[in-house]
Amino acid sequence: MKLYDSGRAPNPRRVKIFLAEKGITIPTEQIDLTRLEHKGEAYSALNPVQQVPALVLDDDFVLTETIAICRYFEELQPEPPLFGTDAFSRALVEMWQRRIEFGLLVPVAAVFRHLHPAMAQMEVPQVPAWGEANKERVNRFLAVLDKELVGQRFICGPSFTVADITGLVGLDFMKPAKLAVPDEFTHVRRWHEALSARPSAKA
Amino acid sequence: MKLYDSGRAPNPRRVKIFLAEKGITIPTEQIDLTRLEHKGEAYSALNPVQQVPALVLDDDFVLTETIAICRYFEELQPEPPLFGTDAFSRALVEMWQRRIEFGLLVPVAAVFRHLHPAMAQMEVPQVPAWGEANKERVNRFLAVLDKELVGQRFICGPSFTVADITGLVGLDFMKPAKLAVPDEFTHVRRWHEALSARPSAKA
Repeated sequence: MKLYDSGRAPNPRRVKIFLAEKGITIPTEQIDLTRLEHKGEAYSALNPVQQVPALVLDDDFVLTETIAICRYFEELQPEPPLFGTDAFSRALVEMWQRRIEFGLLVPVAAVFRHLHPAMAQMEVPQVPAWGEANKERVNRFLAVLDKELVGQRFICGPSFTVADITGLVGLDFMKPAKLAVPDEFTHVRRWHEALSARPSAKA
Repeated sequence: MKLYDSGRAPNPRRVKIFLAEKGITIPTEQIDLTRLEHKGEAYSALNPVQQVPALVLDDDFVLTETIAICRYFEELQPEPPLFGTDAFSRALVEMWQRRIEFGLLVPVAAVFRHLHPAMAQMEVPQVPAWGEANKERVNRFLAVLDKELVGQRFICGPSFTVADITGLVGLDFMKPAKLAVPDEFTHVRRWHEALSARPSAKA
């Protein structure tokens, strides 16, 4: 197997954190997003939607989409479980993974992609008004998240899950997007610190 | 259990099609999106991210997010399997579900929400330039989908899956968004017709 990766890009990082939590090591190959390598002919043949990450399986099938890749590794190596352990907890993890993805990671990415000058070549067309609108979305979701984290170690309870990974990557991605977690959201800040302190956060 | 639903809104419809394919019937309660009932106090207490659908479980826990709800029903009643049947097919279904969600359904929704006059109250602020940018995204993704569907009955192969449901709902949602599948995408059109002919499509 081989993972197509790209430096600090948030989606491949989610996979790398997931693999670090599982203790799995696999070879990686770097795709240079700044040179638009992901839109070139060679990579587009691997992944027609032109995104990283992509996982090339041993039979050469190319599996894409961060969560599909993580789910595949969860099946190959169930321990430690990062997608829940029974019907209810698996639904709960899916719910929070998706809430955090659509409520935090995607809006933070929209702020970055539509407002950062370095993204002018990659995000065509940049729509600054859309970037601005997403700042408010991020703050609205952080308020929901902060309430939910009261008295909870992780977002789904006592166990670390893939939903926490999406949270960590979303919060870290706020920095290049020039966003900050408001001081009042103390539970989000405590959670962010705890996630950042795990060895997997270095991935 | 009870499902909070809203007329023809695309996300609750995905759950209803899923349930129809499983032969499951559950009580529903309608939330009137046009009156912003989903943003009201009562519904926000159920789902702080203010979206339909939401599934109230027998212990009163509120499960939200379309795919989390579908996945929960898949566990309660595995037949017919709509999320795949082994490690690889489950990853493949997850990949295509997400590709179609992010490549078709979300962009079509952006066209509808940011360009349709009826959405001015619900989508604040409407950013028409973002709606326009998504028209091109939809067409780019339809081209990918059309190639993939050559010689394939459903998007993941011979079996109908939840990824096809997202496809059907995304394609149907093009109509209110005033979009149409270009004639050249004959495989997408054939797939759309086949999905529309299933009894579950009436949901």
